[in-house]
Amino acid sequence: MVLDTLAIEAPLELRVDGEPLATLMRTPGDDEVLALGFLLSEGLIDGLDDVRGLAHCAEPAQREPGNVLNVRLAEGVDRAAVSEAVGRRRLLAGSACGVCGRATIDDLLARLRPLSPRPWPATETVQARARALRATQSLFELTGGVHGAALFDRHGALLAAHEDVGRHNAVDKVLGARLRLGAPLTEHDDETLVVSSRAGFEIVQKAVAGRVPVVVTVGAATSLADALARAANVRLFSFVRDAGFNRHGDG
Amino acid sequence: MVLDTLAIEAPLELRVDGEPLATLMRTPGDDEVLALGFLLSEGLIDGLDDVRGLAHCAEPAQREPGNVLNVRLAEGVDRAAVSEAVGRRRLLAGSACGVCGRATIDDLLARLRPLSPRPWPATETVQARARALRATQSLFELTGGVHGAALFDRHGALLAAHEDVGRHNAVDKVLGARLRLGAPLTEHDDETLVVSSRAGFEIVQKAVAGRVPVVVTVGAATSLADALARAANVRLFSFVRDAGFNRHGDG
Repeated sequence: MVLDTLAIEAPLELRVDGEPLATLMRTPGDDEVLALGFLLSEGLIDGLDDVRGLAHCAEPAQREPGNVLNVRLAEGVDRAAVSEAVGRRRLLAGSACGVCGRATIDDLLARLRPLSPRPWPATETVQARARALRATQSLFELTGGVHGAALFDRHGALLAAHEDVGRHNAVDKVLGARLRLGAPLTEHDDETLVVSSRAGFEIVQKAVAGRVPVVVTVGAATSLADALARAANVRLFSFVRDAGFNRHGDG
Repeated sequence: MVLDTLAIEAPLELRVDGEPLATLMRTPGDDEVLALGFLLSEGLIDGLDDVRGLAHCAEPAQREPGNVLNVRLAEGVDRAAVSEAVGRRRLLAGSACGVCGRATIDDLLARLRPLSPRPWPATETVQARARALRATQSLFELTGGVHGAALFDRHGALLAAHEDVGRHNAVDKVLGARLRLGAPLTEHDDETLVVSSRAGFEIVQKAVAGRVPVVVTVGAATSLADALARAANVRLFSFVRDAGFNRHGDG
C-alpha cells in the first residue's frame, strides 16, 4: 500500500485566557473539540460549564491564520490550577501525558480518581467495537498516516469519531466532542473508547479523565497502561483483532 | 497476533546539572544514549565533548530507583541555552518536537541548519535498509508494542539500533549511540536513519540535528515532514514496503 495523499500536520498554539498553555502538532479542522478534550485530560476543566468561549486568534504576523486558539474560562474556574499546569508542562515530554515529573505508579495514581469496578464486556462486543472504529477512519483510508479514536454508548451507537496525526489528539478530540454533547460525563453511561493505536499510559489516563470505563485498542498495551487500567478499574483490551485480544485484568 | 509480553513503559526524569529538563515516557535500559540523543535533538549539545558525565540519581523517597538521570555539561557549554530550553518546553506538547511555539514553516526552518543537496539512494538500497531494520527489532517480536530505529553507514553496515515504546525515543537512542561512537557527526558520512513508525515533523527534525541525510520510514509521512525534508535537503522515503515506497522530493 503506497498512498500519495499526505496527512496534514500543523502546530496549534493553545492559549487559556490569553496565556500560552501548549503547542500541539495536530491535523487541523477540529481545533475546538481538541482544545476541550485536552483541557479535560489535563484536569483543567470538568465540563462545558467551565468554558465561556473558544476562538481562533487573528495574528498579524508570523503565525499562519487558524493556528492559534484561545479558550476563555468561566468565572468560577480555578485559575491557580491553570498557572500550575503551565508550570507543570515544563517537566513534560510525552504529549499531554499527565506525568508531571512524578516517577512512581503511586504518584501517577494519586492524581487520578479511579472508576468503580464494573463487569467486563463480552468478547463479541469488544471485537464489534474495533470493527466499527475502522468504518469511521476515512482519512486513514486516504493517507495511511493518521490514528483514529471513537466513542460508543452502551448500546454500540457511535457518539463521536475523530482522526489525527497524533493518537493523543484523536482521543482528546473524541472526549471534547463528547463534552459538547452536553450531558455531564459519568462512568455510569458505560461508554467505550476505541483507539487504532497502541495503549500507552496516557491513553488510559485520558479515559479515566473522561470517565470512560472501557478502552479497546488495536495495538499493544504498555506495562504502565496495564498497571493504570488495573488500579483505576478501566476495562482495557489491547491487540484487538478478529483473531483475538489481550484483556488487562481479572474478574 | 496476540502477544502476552508487555513492553515496559516508565517515566525518566532528565536533569541537566541538577535542573529538571523533561520527563520522558520510555522503555528503560538505555537511558544514557537516550539522554545524549535527546540533548542533541534539542540543540543543547553538539557532541560528546559537551558532556562531562551522566549518572542515575539515587533518590531517597518517592522515586523509583533508576528513573532519574542527571547530565553534567562541560565547562564551555552555553547554560543560557539550557535555561531557555527549559522555558521553551512550557509551550511544547509533542514529545521533543522542537516546535517551540513557532507556528509557520519558515519559523520552524529558521532553527534548523539545512543539509547540502545530495544524490538520492537507489530503490534497492532503500528497501534493503527497511528489511535490515526489521532484523533488529527483537523487542517488537516479543511485545508488538515498541518502535524501532536504526542507523546504517553508507555501505549498509549497522551503526546502532534501538527500540522504545516511544518512536521519538527510539530515534534519540540511536542518535545518542552514534554520538558515543566518538567521531564528529557530519552529513558527509552519508548515513541512513530507518524508523519503523510514521514520519512526523519531529523525526525529520531529529535527523537534521544528527546530520543524517537519508531517512527511511515504514509508515506514512505527514505534510510537515514532507515540507521540512524538502527544505532541509533530507532524502525522505515513507511507506517503505516490499511493494514500493513514496519519495519526498525531486531530482
